[in-house]
Amino acid sequence: MVSAPKGLEGIVAANSGICFIDGERGVLSYRGYDIHDLADHSTFEEVCYLLWFGRMPNQKELQELQISLWRESKVDAGIISLLRQAPGHALPMDVLRTVVSALAFFDPEEKSNDHEANIRKAIRLTAQISMIVAYYDRIRKGLPLVEPDRFLNHAANFLYMLTGERPSATASHAFDVALILHADHELNASTFAARVTAATLSDMHSAITSAIGTLKGPLHGGANEAVFRILEAIDRSGADPVDYVRGMLAQKKKVPGFGHRVYHTEDPRATHLRKMSKELGESSGEPKWFQISRRIEQFINEDKKLNANVDFYSASTYHTLGIDLDLFTPIFAVSRVSGWTAHVIEQLDDNRLIRPRAEYIGLEYPQKYIPIGERQ
Amino acid sequence: MVSAPKGLEGIVAANSGICFIDGERGVLSYRGYDIHDLADHSTFEEVCYLLWFGRMPNQKELQELQISLWRESKVDAGIISLLRQAPGHALPMDVLRTVVSALAFFDPEEKSNDHEANIRKAIRLTAQISMIVAYYDRIRKGLPLVEPDRFLNHAANFLYMLTGERPSATASHAFDVALILHADHELNASTFAARVTAATLSDMHSAITSAIGTLKGPLHGGANEAVFRILEAIDRSGADPVDYVRGMLAQKKKVPGFGHRVYHTEDPRATHLRKMSKELGESSGEPKWFQISRRIEQFINEDKKLNANVDFYSASTYHTLGIDLDLFTPIFAVSRVSGWTAHVIEQLDDNRLIRPRAEYIGLEYPQKYIPIGERQ
Repeated sequence: MVSAPKGLEGIVAANSGICFIDGERGVLSYRGYDIHDLADHSTFEEVCYLLWFGRMPNQKELQELQISLWRESKVDAGIISLLRQAPGHALPMDVLRTVVSALAFFDPEEKSNDHEANIRKAIRLTAQISMIVAYYDRIRKGLPLVEPDRFLNHAANFLYMLTGERPSATASHAFDVALILHADHELNASTFAARVTAATLSDMHSAITSAIGTLKGPLHGGANEAVFRILEAIDRSGADPVDYVRGMLAQKKKVPGFGHRVYHTEDPRATHLRKMSKELGESSGEPKWFQISRRIEQFINEDKKLNANVDFYSASTYHTLGIDLDLFTPIFAVSRVSGWTAHVIEQLDDNRLIRPRAEYIGLEYPQKYIPIGERQ
Repeated sequence: MVSAPKGLEGIVAANSGICFIDGERGVLSYRGYDIHDLADHSTFEEVCYLLWFGRMPNQKELQELQISLWRESKVDAGIISLLRQAPGHALPMDVLRTVVSALAFFDPEEKSNDHEANIRKAIRLTAQISMIVAYYDRIRKGLPLVEPDRFLNHAANFLYMLTGERPSATASHAFDVALILHADHELNASTFAARVTAATLSDMHSAITSAIGTLKGPLHGGANEAVFRILEAIDRSGADPVDYVRGMLAQKKKVPGFGHRVYHTEDPRATHLRKMSKELGESSGEPKWFQISRRIEQFINEDKKLNANVDFYSASTYHTLGIDLDLFTPIFAVSRVSGWTAHVIEQLDDNRLIRPRAEYIGLEYPQKYIPIGERQ
């Protein structure tokens, strides 16, 4: 047996052709395409195609995928009823995890686990998760559900189903870029959980359910929510952002949204999210969230030598798009499902059960079994 | 970065004081107590106490846990309604995964993730999963639900809630031993998935939901179901068991229930399950399932030099206990939830995010981004 560093840090657990990260140079790429090119020129649908099929689509292929995503944007009445039955106090990620698990009941290919069936499930789940997050919010607010629009892309359709209004070009572009930036990130914890689940030859819905439960944690998808709670606290208290964060550090609290196990440079996704946060703040006439964020970032850069990660500016970006705080993590899933499904398909194409070992550090073996009547 | 063997084979991914396995000597122990002692002298409740609290209970502590398990054997009406709404064609493990995820909606401590709260959640989940599996089967058969009996132990109560009849001493002892044998097995795939999920500081329900989805796979919990399908096919066709299995091997089919990544000897759990399968077969007047199993085992021992694992004799044992084939894997969860929850608690007591790396083997970076109009 070979001991690995805690948390499997630096251990290569799989070969993968999906995501290339160079933490020293600050490179993130999907299937060899640089994230900056994709953020500047691509769309989320194009990125989905790239992740699932391993190459860029031509115009016809992209159009077909767009139509499929729209066509699969429907859920069984049983799913809507489950959303309506979730108690008001239930946590959004608990609801999403449960409802995505229940999608398996209605999937026409639940018992198929081959490559082609799983590509179709990837399309369905990507379409359905977007719809479920939007409908969950409509239902809890007592608002009528909004059918997706055939002529809007995936990002715009999400905002349309969520708000009931056709989003501005700026808003839908910003959300599209956010979806692109969050689509995949190699063996992050939720993707790794999805692969561990898939590797027993379980199924796509089990794997994506595991991923959602894993994403929920504050050390993973929950971080952007934690960032915004701080921005809000600063705004409410009227404190100087730097003083506030200095106070957190003095209390040995970790400031969320900074540092990353893999990147030793700026997280390349933060570069785009900073820009979007600024632009959206200006265009919406509410620049304060960007301004507070920027002051915190400059201070942490200097004081702790830590860079903003993907979560830091997604907080102010999502808020300015009118998205409720407790939907920030579900929205991460709206994007990341594209990468999760790609990883499950890749895992199954060349599968082996993922079953590591533990180093035993407990009571010495063998302990003498003492009959219960004689125990202290 | 350090490359690990495929499937993390032989890689120590965590330190753990829960389960000690010596694959060379055929040793399995929980907290230092040999599985043979536990199977011969202990009860499932005692094993739960041992797993969760790290030591054997005295009489009073054991009694308190038994009362707690009975007292927590209740679920919200919303859970019963979810069980009733699952379509008839839904797979039992999909239903279990979904319903356990939904238990989070009603958990009084959903937002607490500390050691003490998680011990209470472990007790609740162990009680509730047993009830859910039994009630699922009653509901799909259109039978009335059966309240657990204060004076039966956990194993007997499961059989009572499942069948509506107080089980014989032989049946409830056999099921109790089966629960003991399946309670934990170090970093098996479902337990590892639970730890990966918990390590983002997500919550107990997310972790157990991941574990259930992972257990579903035929390379893990699904194997005992696959074993029984073969016994059934042999019985139906009237074929000689050895001829049948020889035919499978000739078609390059894997015979489920044999071999184990960790044990190079007989799986110590198989020793007890073989004995139970034999005894139950004799006492029920239906020895054929044991007899078919035994012939297969002797042939595979000689021909392939492979030993029976935990799944092989659990198939005939569960069938003889009157349990439907498609409940074999859910029943694995009825037991393993004790180990899963112990591992989640241990993970959180000394947590680090589990986030390995991938070796990139895809298209060379950087690929030139070609505008869509110019693509082939």
